[in-house]
Amino acid sequence: MNTIETCLTPEMLRHHDLTNKTVVVIDIFRATSCIVTALAHGVQSIIPVGTIAEAKLLQNKGYLTAAERQGSKVEGFDLDNSPFSYLKPELKGKTIGLTTSNGTQAIRAAQEAGAYEVLIGAFLNITVLQEYLQKRSQSVCLLCAGWKGKVNLEDTFFAGAVLNMLAPTFTTINDDCTLAQATYLQGASNPVRFLEQSAHYHRLETLGNQDDITFCLQKGIYQNIPHLKGDKLINL
Amino acid sequence: MNTIETCLTPEMLRHHDLTNKTVVVIDIFRATSCIVTALAHGVQSIIPVGTIAEAKLLQNKGYLTAAERQGSKVEGFDLDNSPFSYLKPELKGKTIGLTTSNGTQAIRAAQEAGAYEVLIGAFLNITVLQEYLQKRSQSVCLLCAGWKGKVNLEDTFFAGAVLNMLAPTFTTINDDCTLAQATYLQGASNPVRFLEQSAHYHRLETLGNQDDITFCLQKGIYQNIPHLKGDKLINL
Repeated sequence: MNTIETCLTPEMLRHHDLTNKTVVVIDIFRATSCIVTALAHGVQSIIPVGTIAEAKLLQNKGYLTAAERQGSKVEGFDLDNSPFSYLKPELKGKTIGLTTSNGTQAIRAAQEAGAYEVLIGAFLNITVLQEYLQKRSQSVCLLCAGWKGKVNLEDTFFAGAVLNMLAPTFTTINDDCTLAQATYLQGASNPVRFLEQSAHYHRLETLGNQDDITFCLQKGIYQNIPHLKGDKLINL
Repeated sequence: MNTIETCLTPEMLRHHDLTNKTVVVIDIFRATSCIVTALAHGVQSIIPVGTIAEAKLLQNKGYLTAAERQGSKVEGFDLDNSPFSYLKPELKGKTIGLTTSNGTQAIRAAQEAGAYEVLIGAFLNITVLQEYLQKRSQSVCLLCAGWKGKVNLEDTFFAGAVLNMLAPTFTTINDDCTLAQATYLQGASNPVRFLEQSAHYHRLETLGNQDDITFCLQKGIYQNIPHLKGDKLINL
């Protein structure tokens, strides 16, 4: 039986051997939700980078670039980290450079740690993602992006939702999975109310991003799974 | 209102400012359960040290010493990490040097991180601990010892049990608290069955330590709270 494990923050990645594993990167509020949305609406590819400096380099090369820190757009860049910014028809076919506080670093960390495959997970594509993981017959690591190295509620909750469906057909190999699944089960009956307890939920709400939260919590509205190919995220 | 936070493993301690905080170190299977038991049965004090080498130094100075790694006693030392080993009348009044895989390092880490006060928590003394924390009127950090830097189920579950009682009178300040409380609520109706999912539970069971597990899960049978005074743990 294939195994499934959860990594609650990229800081704990050193405890995980990603060789031959499919890694699902999770940053619900909002990087992975944005990436799924963008590629669902015709953006051709996204180049995730860890730092503002790398994003600047991409901009200098002529790419459209998006940069977010502390929940807000970084001055001088073209786009922010709101899924609504990626619905515009003029972005169709484009390649966009993206750096965010946590998600893009987690994607790079998974790649550097030798993952066999890096996928992008969000509530927006959870249904197709679960189906893919079940058919794929490969061991899985659910990598929560967290917040600046810390654990966060929404990414753990999402990992728990995936686990809740996949656990019967995988062997769970670390206690983080039990924590994530318990977190999901506690909040599943009313996710919005449950996730109101999240520190980042409050941060986004204060910044006036309540609509983003509601958007990101829609389940299975998109059928695409972005994956990393070289330095670019494209649809599978 | 005072704050309460949870640190799921000592590796995450750098995200916590322990200044003026009461830190409760949690290593249910078995270091903190052992320490509570030992001091409840008349051991005068315990010197927790991080390494085997430090324990050896204490032994050379004439102290009784206990050392555990991988769940088993380290050869050449006087005692292991089973609470049953600390019930012996001949240990009354003694000072014991102790090193374990996770718990003793967590105690030292809390001290080095500048905690105002370091307490030892276990199911065995949970009732008196909760009462103390509520009366103390000081902000609290629940520090789970985990397993070799990883998160573990039983320590998180215990943190959740403490939170479940204290949350109404404290402000919870990180998402780790929500995870811990969810974990507790999922397993509270049948802790033994729930904790069977824990990796360390299996490790101890394989080593034949089932009785230790049962012992460590008894709630509130002791009335003492060990705390760190200088380099020694003594009862408050």
